[in-house]
Amino acid sequence: MKQGMDRPPALLWDWEPGEVGRNPGGLPEGEGTGGKGLNTVQRGSRLWAEGRERAGSEGGKRDEDLVLPINSSLSVTLHQDQLKTTTTAAISKDFTEDRIWLNGREEDVGQPRLQACLRETYALARVYGVDSDLSEVARRGSGSACRSLYGGFVEWQMGERADGKDSVARQVAPESHWPELRVLILVVSAERKLMGSTAGMQTSVETSPLLRFRAEAVVPGRMVEMTHCVRERDFQGFGRLTMKDSNQFHATCLDTFPPISYLSDISRRIVRLVHCFNAHHGQTKVAYTFDAGPNAVVFTLDDTVPEFVAAVRHCFPPESNGDKFLKGLPVRPASLSDELRAALDVDPTPGGVKYIIATQVGPGPQTLDDPHAHLLGPDGLPKPAA
Amino acid sequence: MKQGMDRPPALLWDWEPGEVGRNPGGLPEGEGTGGKGLNTVQRGSRLWAEGRERAGSEGGKRDEDLVLPINSSLSVTLHQDQLKTTTTAAISKDFTEDRIWLNGREEDVGQPRLQACLRETYALARVYGVDSDLSEVARRGSGSACRSLYGGFVEWQMGERADGKDSVARQVAPESHWPELRVLILVVSAERKLMGSTAGMQTSVETSPLLRFRAEAVVPGRMVEMTHCVRERDFQGFGRLTMKDSNQFHATCLDTFPPISYLSDISRRIVRLVHCFNAHHGQTKVAYTFDAGPNAVVFTLDDTVPEFVAAVRHCFPPESNGDKFLKGLPVRPASLSDELRAALDVDPTPGGVKYIIATQVGPGPQTLDDPHAHLLGPDGLPKPAA
Repeated sequence: MKQGMDRPPALLWDWEPGEVGRNPGGLPEGEGTGGKGLNTVQRGSRLWAEGRERAGSEGGKRDEDLVLPINSSLSVTLHQDQLKTTTTAAISKDFTEDRIWLNGREEDVGQPRLQACLRETYALARVYGVDSDLSEVARRGSGSACRSLYGGFVEWQMGERADGKDSVARQVAPESHWPELRVLILVVSAERKLMGSTAGMQTSVETSPLLRFRAEAVVPGRMVEMTHCVRERDFQGFGRLTMKDSNQFHATCLDTFPPISYLSDISRRIVRLVHCFNAHHGQTKVAYTFDAGPNAVVFTLDDTVPEFVAAVRHCFPPESNGDKFLKGLPVRPASLSDELRAALDVDPTPGGVKYIIATQVGPGPQTLDDPHAHLLGPDGLPKPAA
Repeated sequence: MKQGMDRPPALLWDWEPGEVGRNPGGLPEGEGTGGKGLNTVQRGSRLWAEGRERAGSEGGKRDEDLVLPINSSLSVTLHQDQLKTTTTAAISKDFTEDRIWLNGREEDVGQPRLQACLRETYALARVYGVDSDLSEVARRGSGSACRSLYGGFVEWQMGERADGKDSVARQVAPESHWPELRVLILVVSAERKLMGSTAGMQTSVETSPLLRFRAEAVVPGRMVEMTHCVRERDFQGFGRLTMKDSNQFHATCLDTFPPISYLSDISRRIVRLVHCFNAHHGQTKVAYTFDAGPNAVVFTLDDTVPEFVAAVRHCFPPESNGDKFLKGLPVRPASLSDELRAALDVDPTPGGVKYIIATQVGPGPQTLDDPHAHLLGPDGLPKPAA
């Protein structure tokens, strides 16, 4: 938030997603908002199902400050009961500067990677009560922020205008549309990155011939197909396309120079497991996708969850934390048939998957009315930890 | 070799490349060829520097039996002193069937993956004395076999004709052209394949949108650039293009469905090591390429070999076989500067690289006159092991 913007400074606290059960409800009680425009929003994490490239600029054609996407994308909002981000924003003309805390630690507001986060959080905060001027969101052309307003399946249209005003989000289907759909997040053992990843998407745009081809010639058709699969609840089509698109995204990372590799050998073992599982059943019953990291996100339907979780346990026997291996939605125990066990042509890797988070598609962001839920005190500063 | 072909049956013995020091000279003496057309050819292994896709058919456009390439490629013949294949062919009208031995073990001649090998070997055998009818080689349109006739840097032009007659090889530069060029083969620890690879290139052609784009829009320009770099002995250009092309080849493998991954985590650590090494020096001093497996082939110039080998030893400390870590050309010991050691931002992985073969560009195939070198006895059967 640079100076000179037409809004008062804000104090922000952003709780990053990624863990289950760290509910801020246990924080000590605050004293109300004190008239300072204190507002807390909780939203589910988003998962990309199709296309995920963004870049600051694309051959100079688009505004470099807008962080416009180089292709359209489809994302899924996860349920807040399992994975969520809680954000409290305090806004006041009395504040003399912008400050931000992430997970309780203050960060430099000027940091470029925080700017996008700030824009999004700020837009959300305004929409949800601090300031209801929605035109601000539209003016900034922040498709990413718009997208955060929806639950369910959300398309972010890349748009064509240089000012990004047509780069907007729309809901393809609400969270209630496909109630059988389940999402399993396979958190793999943390390991040092083997190939660089700091350079990121901008380097890919500049160095990968395959990325531009993908954005121009492959993703548009896949977006149409993927939207159709979601609307028809066609899991076979949805799953195959999700896997193909994940693989192609990571292919363009490998085609970047120097190359970027987010997948680890454990990720590749999960890929193999999924293909073995599907081959055994003669159909696409589970589908993986990987974002910028080695953790696998597996889509499946509710009746397949127990058997697939058993298959994961078989291939990645839990080490010490067997009782905490499964988090989120309850999953009934299941045993593997001898045929499936034989079909899982994977050497077991103990501890390769640390734990699984079982979740599902969720609704859009929700304003928390309970003042206990505020992460900031009435003075705008983070509440002390309990 | 199907029945009905216009040649007599042949008995073949093919010694696969990949190890140094297993010279067949130690085999017991034979009794001469006995008039059966016994002929032994020794040739260096080939390495791809640019483009390596081959497929049986491409959208039905080309003859499915010909194994024509879907793009042109540049390969390098390695020196026979370090890596070689020795083939003895015996040919006689008295033989009643085709038989083949690979590394002394008889294989099924009907196996599809042996057919291409047989075609090549057969063509070579004919060229080198068994039968001098070169037109046979041309008629079969076997660019791969033609390519085996040259040393140095060899281009295999993909051609455009359906019958493959314009898919021929030509020498870009002889082995004496770039005497400073060195090739280090980093043999990594064998591990189970994590993702399938049996499907191979035909599946890639059918399922990877990126592969066709690469073949049509990327490789042709790179071939021109690569040939120029070789002719000008421009290592910077040669090295960067070699790495980019290797990465892109493996990107199309990942874009195949189900995906193919030949690289292991050790391969990726080598990639990172090379980029760290080059970044430290501020120029491309070493370049990797990977074929259909996790072993790295590293190109560099002779004055860089000692320091790079020391860097490999640092990142992959040899386990038990420290004395056998380096094979092939002698390399003088070198120590790493503290700066370079700090720049090698890789966690050491003991035993990750099993050994290094140091070699260089070599000449074309050579007929061995010494009857001791024959791998088959005068009866056409493999000689008994010593």
